[in-house]
Amino acid sequence: MAKIAIFYYSSTGTNYQLAQWAESAAKEAGADVKLRKIKETAPESAIAQNPGWKEHYDATKDVPEATNDDIEWADGMIFSVPTRFGNVPSQVKQFLDMAGGLWAQGKTINKVVSAMSSAQNPHGGQEATILTLYTSMFHWGAIVAAPGYTNQELFTAGGNPYGVSVTVDQNNKMVEDVEKAVKHQARRTLEITNMVVK
Amino acid sequence: MAKIAIFYYSSTGTNYQLAQWAESAAKEAGADVKLRKIKETAPESAIAQNPGWKEHYDATKDVPEATNDDIEWADGMIFSVPTRFGNVPSQVKQFLDMAGGLWAQGKTINKVVSAMSSAQNPHGGQEATILTLYTSMFHWGAIVAAPGYTNQELFTAGGNPYGVSVTVDQNNKMVEDVEKAVKHQARRTLEITNMVVK
Amino acid sequence: MAKIAIFYYSSTGTNYQLAQWAESAAKEAGADVKLRKIKETAPESAIAQNPGWKEHYDATKDVPEATNDDIEWADGMIFSVPTRFGNVPSQVKQFLDMAGGLWAQGKTINKVVSAMSSAQNPHGGQEATILTLYTSMFHWGAIVAAPGYTNQELFTAGGNPYGVSVTVDQNNKMVEDVEKAVKHQARRTLEITNMVVK
Amino acid sequence: MAKIAIFYYSSTGTNYQLAQWAESAAKEAGADVKLRKIKETAPESAIAQNPGWKEHYDATKDVPEATNDDIEWADGMIFSVPTRFGNVPSQVKQFLDMAGGLWAQGKTINKVVSAMSSAQNPHGGQEATILTLYTSMFHWGAIVAAPGYTNQELFTAGGNPYGVSVTVDQNNKMVEDVEKAVKHQARRTLEITNMVVK
Repeated sequence: MAKIAIFYYSSTGTNYQLAQWAESAAKEAGADVKLRKIKETAPESAIAQNPGWKEHYDATKDVPEATNDDIEWADGMIFSVPTRFGNVPSQVKQFLDMAGGLWAQGKTINKVVSAMSSAQNPHGGQEATILTLYTSMFHWGAIVAAPGYTNQELFTAGGNPYGVSVTVDQNNKMVEDVEKAVKHQARRTLEITNMVVK
Repeated sequence: MAKIAIFYYSSTGTNYQLAQWAESAAKEAGADVKLRKIKETAPESAIAQNPGWKEHYDATKDVPEATNDDIEWADGMIFSVPTRFGNVPSQVKQFLDMAGGLWAQGKTINKVVSAMSSAQNPHGGQEATILTLYTSMFHWGAIVAAPGYTNQELFTAGGNPYGVSVTVDQNNKMVEDVEKAVKHQARRTLEITNMVVK
Repeated sequence: MAKIAIFYYSSTGTNYQLAQWAESAAKEAGADVKLRKIKETAPESAIAQNPGWKEHYDATKDVPEATNDDIEWADGMIFSVPTRFGNVPSQVKQFLDMAGGLWAQGKTINKVVSAMSSAQNPHGGQEATILTLYTSMFHWGAIVAAPGYTNQELFTAGGNPYGVSVTVDQNNKMVEDVEKAVKHQARRTLEITNMVVK
Repeated sequence: MAKIAIFYYSSTGTNYQLAQWAESAAKEAGADVKLRKIKETAPESAIAQNPGWKEHYDATKDVPEATNDDIEWADGMIFSVPTRFGNVPSQVKQFLDMAGGLWAQGKTINKVVSAMSSAQNPHGGQEATILTLYTSMFHWGAIVAAPGYTNQELFTAGGNPYGVSVTVDQNNKMVEDVEKAVKHQARRTLEITNMVVK
């Protein structure tokens, strides 16, 4: 049974939702799944100034934080992260950077990876953010299995071949209907992972 | 008066339309403008199999083809190209590759550049295509002036900060309303070009 | 026995050499291998002006040209291409673009891919060219297995985690010693392909 | 007199040295220059475990830390950052992310930008790191003036057209001789900035 770690960072809940959909699909397909929150690094004072952020921060206090052990444990990894200026948030970059020791021991090799993203504009960095994450994954010796156009649901979701992405409007609502596409991506990542860990 | 070359490649007309909007805005703002079609390299037999392609091909037979001389002439350049697998079409890449001699003489340096793109899916490579073109422009020593979020119209157009992009549906209609954003991008490119050539 | 297609484009021989090393390693490891030359699109008159290009062009006249059938046939694909302004040459882009029909039928899905590159400057686009090719591969639904840092030979070769790359000096000689790294990359691509097709 | 902010992050001194060379060239060419250290976010306990890091950390305690005010102040910006898995370090990403408020007020627009990088392998992400930083700069509405091949010194330095980059060996020594190239890049960034602010 392949082990899938789902790593997400979320300030107001979108990527937590994407991550939960991925978790549910991967579990249903028989994977051993860990859903892990990437550690917040912003000061509490900054969080408190944004009610939506504060609310989500409090609501997910009990979601376990992602650690190097989770990376080492995983056969496959799904990332779900918002864009920040066309790149992953600093919180996510810190999580990756702190895996330097694991990387030096060769423990990041051959993990199957895919990623999802969100932004506030329809073309607000959804593509660039995922591609940039994959660049880091190549350094890890990961096997990148982006969804491409492997399923009709991906077209409904906006047809981002690098990973499912969603646009979030001013009221923090998702614009595209991406649940099925997210679940497809999770199943696909699991399927490839099963091939590799066989 | 700054000289602006607008280089486009279009199989069924979308990028020709974007290029024409850019041309009209740049002219109105006082630029000396050349609108140039990037040479088709597909065989006529391939074109003939696609009625929309054939029709556009015939309709634009008289648009002058882009040459190295146009690159050399220009102070600023605006590219409008569709995506092909998240990268510029081979026709566009050939046009760039053939400027090797110009590049070797330093004649591509300090031209101000921005780019626009289109795709059939909302996240079908619009971002990646423009970013890849800019990568080549750095080799040329160009000055890249992407639109960012410098104008409200850019948000209406989908908020692609790398360059205005549009989604084309199954009936070859543009999904987003991008005319004003394209015109803003053209004026901005001209404005920066004027600063550089002054 | 996994089927590996090695696609290369070469004007003066570097990437043909890389491709041959990859071929030899993949064959030795038991793969069914096809070495295929990506079709030249430059006019003979242009080739004739560059003696090194002309010589290589003539010397490899009998290497079979890559076709869509080769893509369809392959379980895994290794690309070896020089950089042209930080992107693949137009010849390579044309080869990819012409696979549109294959892609539309879903026949590019789940192929395992890695790539190699060369440039005339040590940082002349080696990284960018491979990353850009991978972007297109995500559109194809490919599984990208870059070498990362999975072997000591990769460090000797310059430590490009996206794919082995080499610098070519003014006399058309390779600067780094990359043969062993190329062979490692070929074996790794085969190894992952074997997992996927098994 | 154009105002140039030089932002660097350095753990063991390489990028501090690059930044100082840039500072000296920009000052000599008449710019009003601020050299600013991007804030360290690693815990002191982590720093203490790496003697080289600890030494540099202590030695640069008095270099002023980069703030949003420095971004707002600047007409042009030069970044010097090491690679971390083909992307900017999390420290640098945090600095960028914290400029969200400035960005929302349009205060990041039309700043002229170039960047430099370092890595431990010759192809260890030097290109990818700079390109990724530029992607974020497009979100800011910056004007990106990479060095391209605008000067012979750039070839000596390894010919990275996106920005001068250097390889650092196991003894923390720079492999390539990049001082003159760095100074050229600084002067070029200033020159373009002067055109824009004139």
